[in-house]
Amino acid sequence: MVKINECLLKMEKNNIFKNVALKVSEYKKKNPDKKIISLGVGDVSKPIVKPIIDAMHEAVDDLADSKTFKGYGSYYGYDFLKEKIIDNEYKDFDISLDEIYISNGTKTDSTSILELFDINSKICITDPIYPIYRDGAASLNRKVFILDIKNDLPVIPKEKYDIIYLCSPSNPMGIAYKKDYLKKWIIYAIKNESVILYDNVYSAFIESEDVPKSIYEIEGAKKVAIELRSFSKNASFTGVRCSYYIIPKEIKNNINEFWKRRTINRFNGADYIAQKGALASFLPESQKLIKDNIKYYKDNAKLLRKAFSNCGFHFIGGIDSPYLWVKIKENITSWEVFDIFLKTLNIVIIPGIIFGKNGDNYFRVSSLGKKKDVVEAIKRIEKYYNEKE
Amino acid sequence: MVKINECLLKMEKNNIFKNVALKVSEYKKKNPDKKIISLGVGDVSKPIVKPIIDAMHEAVDDLADSKTFKGYGSYYGYDFLKEKIIDNEYKDFDISLDEIYISNGTKTDSTSILELFDINSKICITDPIYPIYRDGAASLNRKVFILDIKNDLPVIPKEKYDIIYLCSPSNPMGIAYKKDYLKKWIIYAIKNESVILYDNVYSAFIESEDVPKSIYEIEGAKKVAIELRSFSKNASFTGVRCSYYIIPKEIKNNINEFWKRRTINRFNGADYIAQKGALASFLPESQKLIKDNIKYYKDNAKLLRKAFSNCGFHFIGGIDSPYLWVKIKENITSWEVFDIFLKTLNIVIIPGIIFGKNGDNYFRVSSLGKKKDVVEAIKRIEKYYNEKE
Repeated sequence: MVKINECLLKMEKNNIFKNVALKVSEYKKKNPDKKIISLGVGDVSKPIVKPIIDAMHEAVDDLADSKTFKGYGSYYGYDFLKEKIIDNEYKDFDISLDEIYISNGTKTDSTSILELFDINSKICITDPIYPIYRDGAASLNRKVFILDIKNDLPVIPKEKYDIIYLCSPSNPMGIAYKKDYLKKWIIYAIKNESVILYDNVYSAFIESEDVPKSIYEIEGAKKVAIELRSFSKNASFTGVRCSYYIIPKEIKNNINEFWKRRTINRFNGADYIAQKGALASFLPESQKLIKDNIKYYKDNAKLLRKAFSNCGFHFIGGIDSPYLWVKIKENITSWEVFDIFLKTLNIVIIPGIIFGKNGDNYFRVSSLGKKKDVVEAIKRIEKYYNEKE
Repeated sequence: MVKINECLLKMEKNNIFKNVALKVSEYKKKNPDKKIISLGVGDVSKPIVKPIIDAMHEAVDDLADSKTFKGYGSYYGYDFLKEKIIDNEYKDFDISLDEIYISNGTKTDSTSILELFDINSKICITDPIYPIYRDGAASLNRKVFILDIKNDLPVIPKEKYDIIYLCSPSNPMGIAYKKDYLKKWIIYAIKNESVILYDNVYSAFIESEDVPKSIYEIEGAKKVAIELRSFSKNASFTGVRCSYYIIPKEIKNNINEFWKRRTINRFNGADYIAQKGALASFLPESQKLIKDNIKYYKDNAKLLRKAFSNCGFHFIGGIDSPYLWVKIKENITSWEVFDIFLKTLNIVIIPGIIFGKNGDNYFRVSSLGKKKDVVEAIKRIEKYYNEKE
């Protein structure tokens, strides 16, 4: 008789973001007249910029004509995109075409990549953490170990771990790791022959000079680090789906080659239109418009930082990242503060517990929404907390 | 120290289709003047039809405007597409919206779905078989058992298996399973509480009346069968990537619900543009043009059937499927016949061994190419075999 994979039996019915969405939609149903503003899930609000749109139209037209039609592409992505990524993002690091993999979303990539490694590998994640690392690993029958946070940074462990997930700029903590700190992780990984899965999907938000734009800025990183990136948050591709990751050939055990074996049997390449769009995101005219979009979100973040500061909150983030990680003032849980925000302020925030037990004194606020919504949300927050005090 | 997943260590460096591609490109490099015709890998040659192209342009424009912009979609696909699929493909079978999953390629889906089931599940495949079932399962540390073929049909086993892969219309065998035969499988699966993974991506090619268009035409199938479909071969989406599958809620052990748990943690939905395009494939004007395309491939298949017949080959397929499964006349292996075709006729066919040891007396021929290439290939084949005899 067919049996369910035991890891799914242990898994919660909904993932944590879905639990937020369900609570919000339940409240909306009961209160159809309330204007709910979301500072919650990290979807972008700016549409895709025109030069990328133009390129996607051209790609659609390519598919209409047998002379230019594209069927199955490369398992690993088109060279035209890989070359452009190297030129723009990795030219200082001697990354070759066969070290880049184009895919259709970092959410999927960040877990699938675990299939490279022995099923009993010791995987460690931080707490708080982007919960997909934890739940995705569980869905692949992998166990994770949890690192604590000290002074807002994951504590580098004394024990040996095989795989380490690091997310910088951090979701949910909204801060980005500095070079000096990352150097310690690279030294740790080289010493312990570990692999670091470096989720760098928010790299477009980095502005601090001591924060590297890529992990490969750190000496030795090509020996131990896989970097994951995406077009979601910079090119507004959350609905288009295009991501990439680097598996350097310098990582021991021929990891790059073994990943090719896995990929050819499991994936038929990313969408042609998405790859053409991603290519166009590197055009100078696109880059300019994307920078404007990032600035728009950063202006939102500045307003949010000011507001939470005015209301006497302690928080980090919102500089090298679209997220603020705000400490709860009252002696209540993060689901309780979520309820206050939803029911009293009609604002959606993400309760910190979603990101791990260390998150229960916090909530995450996103700056990726529309400015007018952010301004209105701030009004409500300031009014509530100023009247309260 | 990080260890490679043992299943990847056992896996061959290239997948089997890639081995064909490498041999062809090597030959081309040495013989740049030769005009090679591919009757090999099953990619389509007809471009995407205009109503779908128009819809994809509209979808691209939606992404350019903040009023219509689409970010993250549903994990399981947009309802607009799921509703249309039910209306067009499943209206007789009482399939509900939460039984359909939209995804980005059956190649990925057909293996990922194994994650639903216990890692020690007894999985069986036929021989010959679409090799991704075998190699994909291996990449997930799953073992497969192999069923023999008798009278061109997989032999229904006496033993209990948990998961059975069936592909109809069959890749590579080019035939489709009839209702009476499939009934026996459904009875087997109900009796043994097995699940049938029914890969039906070539359903658009079915013309025989006793072949069901969907496995759910068979009584009881909703209790045991997951059906996989794709827009690749009918709507020419091999480069666009859009697929779907049905997991009926009637299958025991809440399989449908458990798959939702897996999906929310591993996937962020299929591309919006692809889903809008797939939706438009159901427009009457698209359906008409798609039928013309299928007829075009079927006309190719007729020509190929006639030619191989004229040359004295035994073969099956090419009626309910784009593939012919041709028996080798000489006492040589399928790689040897591949070499003859490549080097003497400058034609690429797929050696049967790729699909399993029972395939080594056969080769697969695809009718999905351009008519002029098929006509030219036939000329070469007939000349060679007629002169030879």
